[in-house]
Amino acid sequence: MEIGSQFKTVALVGRTNTPGIEAPLTSLAELIAGQGFEVVFEAQTAKEVGVTRYPALSTAEIGARADVAVVLGGDGTMLGFGRQLAPYKTPLIGVNHGRLGFITDISLAQMHELVPQMLGGSFEREERSLLEARIVRGGKPIYHALAFNDVVVNRSGFSGMTELRVSVDGHFMYDQRSDGLIVATPTGSTAYALSAAGPILHPELQGFVLVPIAPHSLSNRPIVLPDDSKVDIQIIGGRDVNVNFDMQSFTALELNDTIEVRRSRHTVPVLHPVGYSHFATLRKKLHWHEHPSQADASNP
Amino acid sequence: MEIGSQFKTVALVGRTNTPGIEAPLTSLAELIAGQGFEVVFEAQTAKEVGVTRYPALSTAEIGARADVAVVLGGDGTMLGFGRQLAPYKTPLIGVNHGRLGFITDISLAQMHELVPQMLGGSFEREERSLLEARIVRGGKPIYHALAFNDVVVNRSGFSGMTELRVSVDGHFMYDQRSDGLIVATPTGSTAYALSAAGPILHPELQGFVLVPIAPHSLSNRPIVLPDDSKVDIQIIGGRDVNVNFDMQSFTALELNDTIEVRRSRHTVPVLHPVGYSHFATLRKKLHWHEHPSQADASNP
Amino acid sequence: MEIGSQFKTVALVGRTNTPGIEAPLTSLAELIAGQGFEVVFEAQTAKEVGVTRYPALSTAEIGARADVAVVLGGDGTMLGFGRQLAPYKTPLIGVNHGRLGFITDISLAQMHELVPQMLGGSFEREERSLLEARIVRGGKPIYHALAFNDVVVNRSGFSGMTELRVSVDGHFMYDQRSDGLIVATPTGSTAYALSAAGPILHPELQGFVLVPIAPHSLSNRPIVLPDDSKVDIQIIGGRDVNVNFDMQSFTALELNDTIEVRRSRHTVPVLHPVGYSHFATLRKKLHWHEHPSQADASNP
Amino acid sequence: MEIGSQFKTVALVGRTNTPGIEAPLTSLAELIAGQGFEVVFEAQTAKEVGVTRYPALSTAEIGARADVAVVLGGDGTMLGFGRQLAPYKTPLIGVNHGRLGFITDISLAQMHELVPQMLGGSFEREERSLLEARIVRGGKPIYHALAFNDVVVNRSGFSGMTELRVSVDGHFMYDQRSDGLIVATPTGSTAYALSAAGPILHPELQGFVLVPIAPHSLSNRPIVLPDDSKVDIQIIGGRDVNVNFDMQSFTALELNDTIEVRRSRHTVPVLHPVGYSHFATLRKKLHWHEHPSQADASNP
Repeated sequence: MEIGSQFKTVALVGRTNTPGIEAPLTSLAELIAGQGFEVVFEAQTAKEVGVTRYPALSTAEIGARADVAVVLGGDGTMLGFGRQLAPYKTPLIGVNHGRLGFITDISLAQMHELVPQMLGGSFEREERSLLEARIVRGGKPIYHALAFNDVVVNRSGFSGMTELRVSVDGHFMYDQRSDGLIVATPTGSTAYALSAAGPILHPELQGFVLVPIAPHSLSNRPIVLPDDSKVDIQIIGGRDVNVNFDMQSFTALELNDTIEVRRSRHTVPVLHPVGYSHFATLRKKLHWHEHPSQADASNP
Repeated sequence: MEIGSQFKTVALVGRTNTPGIEAPLTSLAELIAGQGFEVVFEAQTAKEVGVTRYPALSTAEIGARADVAVVLGGDGTMLGFGRQLAPYKTPLIGVNHGRLGFITDISLAQMHELVPQMLGGSFEREERSLLEARIVRGGKPIYHALAFNDVVVNRSGFSGMTELRVSVDGHFMYDQRSDGLIVATPTGSTAYALSAAGPILHPELQGFVLVPIAPHSLSNRPIVLPDDSKVDIQIIGGRDVNVNFDMQSFTALELNDTIEVRRSRHTVPVLHPVGYSHFATLRKKLHWHEHPSQADASNP
Repeated sequence: MEIGSQFKTVALVGRTNTPGIEAPLTSLAELIAGQGFEVVFEAQTAKEVGVTRYPALSTAEIGARADVAVVLGGDGTMLGFGRQLAPYKTPLIGVNHGRLGFITDISLAQMHELVPQMLGGSFEREERSLLEARIVRGGKPIYHALAFNDVVVNRSGFSGMTELRVSVDGHFMYDQRSDGLIVATPTGSTAYALSAAGPILHPELQGFVLVPIAPHSLSNRPIVLPDDSKVDIQIIGGRDVNVNFDMQSFTALELNDTIEVRRSRHTVPVLHPVGYSHFATLRKKLHWHEHPSQADASNP
Repeated sequence: MEIGSQFKTVALVGRTNTPGIEAPLTSLAELIAGQGFEVVFEAQTAKEVGVTRYPALSTAEIGARADVAVVLGGDGTMLGFGRQLAPYKTPLIGVNHGRLGFITDISLAQMHELVPQMLGGSFEREERSLLEARIVRGGKPIYHALAFNDVVVNRSGFSGMTELRVSVDGHFMYDQRSDGLIVATPTGSTAYALSAAGPILHPELQGFVLVPIAPHSLSNRPIVLPDDSKVDIQIIGGRDVNVNFDMQSFTALELNDTIEVRRSRHTVPVLHPVGYSHFATLRKKLHWHEHPSQADASNP
């Protein structure tokens, strides 16, 4: 818990194309403006909800001027905006417009109570790490992107498999035939990587995980690497292979393309209400370790 | 659904050492006696709940005289009584005194409505298969048992591992170093075998499954065998290895002992209310395929 | 082992577009023709390898006239030809032109010794089951196919996931969000289904298995169903979903399309040399249950 | 790679009760003594192999006097000796007397070449982390131990399961019913934890992993925690539960006992020959990502 933060300027960001998001956004804006904070809106949000009372700023301007950003939407909104804002170190508060998310952990119902408390300085702060990837073709970088959750190399639905050669810090690790490979941050370890049987990584772990998708080899296992590992993934076989970043931008790959994945030097500060428990979120959202009442000796 | 069964004599069986089980048992007895069925009690149950109004019969006598047995308890009660009654082909109805089970699928609350309907001939009938195992030491059988759920060979908590040699129909299958090996019926596939990452077998599948427990080899996988397979498991290494049957009878094993596992020629008929769905039970008890609301593209 | 078969006409089939396959094919043809068998060639094979000495027959003609077919190629060649020949019940012998396969289990080196023995009546016969699937759109069947390995519904590489509603024998089983779903025969259980963590099904098991691919739910498990189960898979969400059969024919699906999967009434007889062991193939090809020499108590 | 180390005194340690270990030990002693190093023997080793030419020292004396210790044996010998020597920060070199291990990665055949090179200063150095655990009963610590691989809480072979309550840094994480729970270091991640489906942790990862053994819940997953996490495991159910450390010391537990697991402040420096690759060891020992030649589209 940190007390006594000196937030002055608060940016509001809303999920795009979301009917009904004006009301909570403007109500929240009025509430915190009324408490003396300077309120600014992300430009696209301002345009969509028709807000003119507050300055409408680009992401770069928010990065430069705002002390904190409150995001209304889902985890996907946080991922997208978090990636853009990462270079500016602006902390994020996530309010979920819908089901609670892993990082948008404040409900609309609690927003009016919790957001002012947090802006007043009562919060728990977490630094979420990001991945940075670039695609190299014929020796030249052709694409660059950040990922909050994961970098995913995968086959198309109409082709058999991918063949990938993976090196870490210049050491050959393995050749892998599979549907694909997920490189996931701790944040991403509870998203797609979990579906592919990856482990959960605690948000504060200084590491990331490689999880194969439907690997041909029976003896595969996910591997968790230290944060400073340099992972190179080369396409050595398969047709119609592509790579995506947080499932939000996709690029078609060619044979011999290499995807270089590193931890980004940026992290995204995420603020939680005091008393926040990551484990409670895991239990709630994943039904983690909920017990079946099985036909066992405990139920004679 | 079968209509028009000619049940006349109904046996009642209750879980032992279960405070509060007298009331539902005697109330059920009166209800069905009042409808013209002959009611008999399993002897131990009669003794424990102090019932004298109805004949108290041994399991063998129930097998000979009763047309159907209603069991009040948990799945464990069904397993234990079902094994004993198996040679007599007496069908079972399971009423759960507690949480609903996989095979005790009628709640106390619905008992007064559903049991008479079923005794009247409206039910769905399932044949549940059993395993039969004998332990052979120095060429001689030293123990024999039936299992409704599973035959489990496992190490003690104080020893490193078991080494097992498994043959099927006289063909060597594999040597396995592990914590142990589970041979499970379809009924048992949702019990311990599921914890060890085994697949679910539909109750009507003519097969059983071998599931290794914490195998040393990364390339292991459960294997599902046809019902008539003859599985021989020989202890070729490890200390303090034992075998149990439905977690209810345990035998210490010695090096070179062989456990011969076969499908029993007996099956246990289990009756369900009309409309019964095994899949609904799976969903309810295992939270099977319940979705987390993950931080993915579906939640932008 | 069966002795005394009365094979007279033997069809030879080779993998297409395979340089170097003429020599073993023609050498085998001469060998068995020299032993008094009537040799015929599959038409496409005859054309590709330039064989004119033996009759060139269509698959239908082979089904009508040949008593047995010898296939030179890989498992894929067997899958493809086996599906076409299934209605005719012609037994297949598989010779592997390359690495040994699961069902092409005779090496080129052993071919001259083993094939004549088998044609002479010394073999072990297995019936491999097939799946039959049809796609129903707006109430009308639009596509029909057989599968030797599997029917696979999956997402494209550029979309997030599929949402599938699965019913069995008219009972709702589950809604599933995932990369896709595999329905696999015992033969297919060692192919793609195994990569997606499915169990191995013994070839003689009367059943098939449903294996989810990267399911969102943590509580999923593969389920093995009896052979006569009617599985209906409805597309209820996701974009760019498609279905394929043995990875060899692909069809794009639309929302609300249903894929009806049943066991085919056809089976494919596959002949093996005497002494064949399916378990030996599993151990050899999958490194099944090979032990690591781990840092454990057994290695002090 | 570090060049120019100033090793002067070298301790030799051998696996106990190991026929045939005298020859390589004494031959190695002579070789390195001949190169001007001071050679000392671990006392028990000296006694067993009958060495009198070199000083025989206790572990504490080795810790105080030796600059490096060469261990001949298996990974288990390294685990046991490494735990004892941990407080002294003496680096270890592992020579495998038998199959190569994960941390005893020099073969007898290469020993005469590689050990002198390493003593001369050409090596790669890794710090392996340890766990420290204490058992608290009725508020009082009753046992304390270090673990190089893992701390394992598990049931006996004759009881149904354990029920464990796990907290991390004072936050409730989950209640778990299972066969047990493994807390593993990166070194231990390739031992028992791997059998229980845990991920591989790179040796340099600053973290450890919790892996449930045969958990009743379908929605469990291993979780990787940062190195400074304080894990408390309380026994809340089950009979005959025990805990072990590297499978080498066992303690029976009682209801409500708590095992407090922390990272030890000690680490064990392990030296490898120049060019060492952890990934190569994984591939070699685990058959990691070796490909089956499956019956798929890639093998038509």
